[in-house]
Amino acid sequence: MTHIVILGCGFGGLAAVRELSRADVRITLIDRSNHHLFQPLLYQVATAGLSAPAIAAPIRHILARQPNVTTLMACVSDIDVGRRMVLLKDGGAVTYDYLIVATGSTHSYFGHDEWAEAAPGLKTLGDAFEIRRRILLAFEHAEREVLDDLRTPWLTFAVIGAGATGVEMAGTMSEVARHTLADEFRRIDPRKARVVLIEGNDRVLGSYPEDLSAKAQRQLEALGVEVRTGCKVTAIDETGISFTGPSGDERLPARTVIWSAGVAASPIGKSLGVPLDRAGRVIVQPDLSIPGHPEIFVIGDLAAAKSDGKPVPGVSPAAKQMGRVAARNILSQRRGLPGQAFRYRDYGALATIGRKSAVAQVGRFKFSGLSAWLFWLFVHVYFLIGFRNRMMVMTDWAFAYFTFQRNARVVASTEDDPEVLEGGWTHRHARAAEEPAPEVGHAPEAGPAQP
Amino acid sequence: MTHIVILGCGFGGLAAVRELSRADVRITLIDRSNHHLFQPLLYQVATAGLSAPAIAAPIRHILARQPNVTTLMACVSDIDVGRRMVLLKDGGAVTYDYLIVATGSTHSYFGHDEWAEAAPGLKTLGDAFEIRRRILLAFEHAEREVLDDLRTPWLTFAVIGAGATGVEMAGTMSEVARHTLADEFRRIDPRKARVVLIEGNDRVLGSYPEDLSAKAQRQLEALGVEVRTGCKVTAIDETGISFTGPSGDERLPARTVIWSAGVAASPIGKSLGVPLDRAGRVIVQPDLSIPGHPEIFVIGDLAAAKSDGKPVPGVSPAAKQMGRVAARNILSQRRGLPGQAFRYRDYGALATIGRKSAVAQVGRFKFSGLSAWLFWLFVHVYFLIGFRNRMMVMTDWAFAYFTFQRNARVVASTEDDPEVLEGGWTHRHARAAEEPAPEVGHAPEAGPAQP
Repeated sequence: MTHIVILGCGFGGLAAVRELSRADVRITLIDRSNHHLFQPLLYQVATAGLSAPAIAAPIRHILARQPNVTTLMACVSDIDVGRRMVLLKDGGAVTYDYLIVATGSTHSYFGHDEWAEAAPGLKTLGDAFEIRRRILLAFEHAEREVLDDLRTPWLTFAVIGAGATGVEMAGTMSEVARHTLADEFRRIDPRKARVVLIEGNDRVLGSYPEDLSAKAQRQLEALGVEVRTGCKVTAIDETGISFTGPSGDERLPARTVIWSAGVAASPIGKSLGVPLDRAGRVIVQPDLSIPGHPEIFVIGDLAAAKSDGKPVPGVSPAAKQMGRVAARNILSQRRGLPGQAFRYRDYGALATIGRKSAVAQVGRFKFSGLSAWLFWLFVHVYFLIGFRNRMMVMTDWAFAYFTFQRNARVVASTEDDPEVLEGGWTHRHARAAEEPAPEVGHAPEAGPAQP
Repeated sequence: MTHIVILGCGFGGLAAVRELSRADVRITLIDRSNHHLFQPLLYQVATAGLSAPAIAAPIRHILARQPNVTTLMACVSDIDVGRRMVLLKDGGAVTYDYLIVATGSTHSYFGHDEWAEAAPGLKTLGDAFEIRRRILLAFEHAEREVLDDLRTPWLTFAVIGAGATGVEMAGTMSEVARHTLADEFRRIDPRKARVVLIEGNDRVLGSYPEDLSAKAQRQLEALGVEVRTGCKVTAIDETGISFTGPSGDERLPARTVIWSAGVAASPIGKSLGVPLDRAGRVIVQPDLSIPGHPEIFVIGDLAAAKSDGKPVPGVSPAAKQMGRVAARNILSQRRGLPGQAFRYRDYGALATIGRKSAVAQVGRFKFSGLSAWLFWLFVHVYFLIGFRNRMMVMTDWAFAYFTFQRNARVVASTEDDPEVLEGGWTHRHARAAEEPAPEVGHAPEAGPAQP
């Protein structure tokens, strides 16, 4: 039976798997995590509005009733296109008749990888937890800091890059400071926290129509975000960022910096041995296969695809559409039929900014404010995987909307890392948990004697 | 104004803070985490039934409307009883007029601290995530393992210690294997997983009446748990456990081992300079203060208290009652009145085993099965902090009950640690995340140019 291997269970990979649900093929889906992530809402996990399970569904569960799929949780190290074999990091290997590569993208620091430590990006659940942790702990540090000069940087939050993620993060962080945390501190006033959104371009949401960018900026400013456009970042470290703007060189002391300025393709693309674009994306043929290997398809953020001569944007609807086309083209090829060229159907653009604030473009229609926000809410909940998650997210949002509270303000790892509030920074995974050694002796209330 | 410092925001510390809500005092509450944890449901987080925010409420939020409390997130390194000063690990210090120490307990491996790595216990949210991760990844490993001999240990789960936590963990893990995961794997049958509960005593739930222990064991066995009583563990490593039982020495190859056999008091007790019992707990006076220091009170799991000559058990109702008495005794002392002796009011014992299975003793009444389970559900949801959490937990349980699904089957950190499925074990925090280095170059779809 034809064996199709699919790497990555993001929007593209999952769409391909589902498109093949009734096909007489054997599918192996390989992902390094155990869940499909609804990435458009990841910023909500990072800002403590949603818990991780609300936007992450176990892959096995999604595909439990599709018997032609075997899911493997594994990391891919290489692809041997000659032997038609995917090599796994633990030494295993999986052969294929057809391969769909959908491993997506990661952050790009434009050659400044040393900024990653001080300015994490937002791609995975782990990233979201780390950002949540930094935001919440910054207020804890500020509450404990006695000197004004040292306190201010803890209450200054910088977001670099004003694309959709940056705008969402900045707007929501401002809401957290102004509403959620407002009355919970005794020594600081969280309302005085600064959220600064820094953008190299001359406007926010650069890929949107200009009038929507202007509206988004006004909505951000109404939420208390300082928007700085035309600013090029020159340095980032744990005490703040330096940038060159319209008024010259500036230094912004900030203990919390979030990077949302660039993405780069997954390094798996390189192992295919075909030309990449300068972002490391695989240049695909019209049918999404790669040159010289009609059995290999690349989709989603990893693919540099064109539709009607224009580059296809790295957004989830495009990934889903590519997934379906790649799956259908495999079935056509098996029957000796020609493949279908990919055509991107653009449904528009939609970005949320905060409570009742959003901008949207659907075809020729542009709208903003409450109507765009309600539309955004509907679209995102509608596309969430699974009835269960939709219900959870709706409940959480209804609660957050009416109470201004956020439900997921939990920093789990601090308990395991008593050093978290010492000396400022804690780098995730960077040091072993130093739990106190257990005391010797039995506690009588612990129940029965030692087994 | 009188300054009361309270260390720890578990059940005891929180009860003390609340008892003082109308008092004309200044309170500083110090905890190393940012949340109050509803520990009785922690096993649900460990078995992927609940998300962390469902059972953890931000301390600041709980106390937002109690203006006489300042909350500090910090780690205590020492207590200087002479200078009436709490020393923090980051070098800070807080002076007090009265001190309530409520720092609880940690795991005890009875002198075998080297077992901690192979057999984590369940005290914090971090512990729960680690156990969740090991359980879910064990099935992933089994799915990928080709050799029977190597696969079986991944499908063998051992729980050491059959107190309430051990019984709950074993029963729930068996349900996860038999119901939740049943149809989601292609190469293994999760229903064939073994869950072995190992107990040194001659019965499970040793602190319960004998007939309830017998009923609990029957309910566990009905859920598929193998109960091994009278077995003394002699070795634990990452491949399994050795123990001596009624039929001699045995070896159980098991890749997932959970420790619920003993607790030891928090090491902070030692810094008070007063006698401890052999579990490291502080021996308190009848009014819960310590000898020679009427201004220092010790409550909860850290206190070795007596009530009517009998030791007070380390359970949450006792901690809450002690918290209230210590708070009242401080207020009495301030007015020059004598303190009240602590008397423990025992409301009974209650342990759940699984779906519709539980045992309960309330006063002279003993019951088990569905009625005990419904009672357990009611009591636990009733005592959860906050309406929000109660609603979340009820929703999650209703969903889990009717669908046999579990909502929180997410292993976040695997995405950040691509090595997770290599070479078997991954130790939390023990190695740096090895994310692929970002590719050089810009991705045009990432939005605007570099700021």
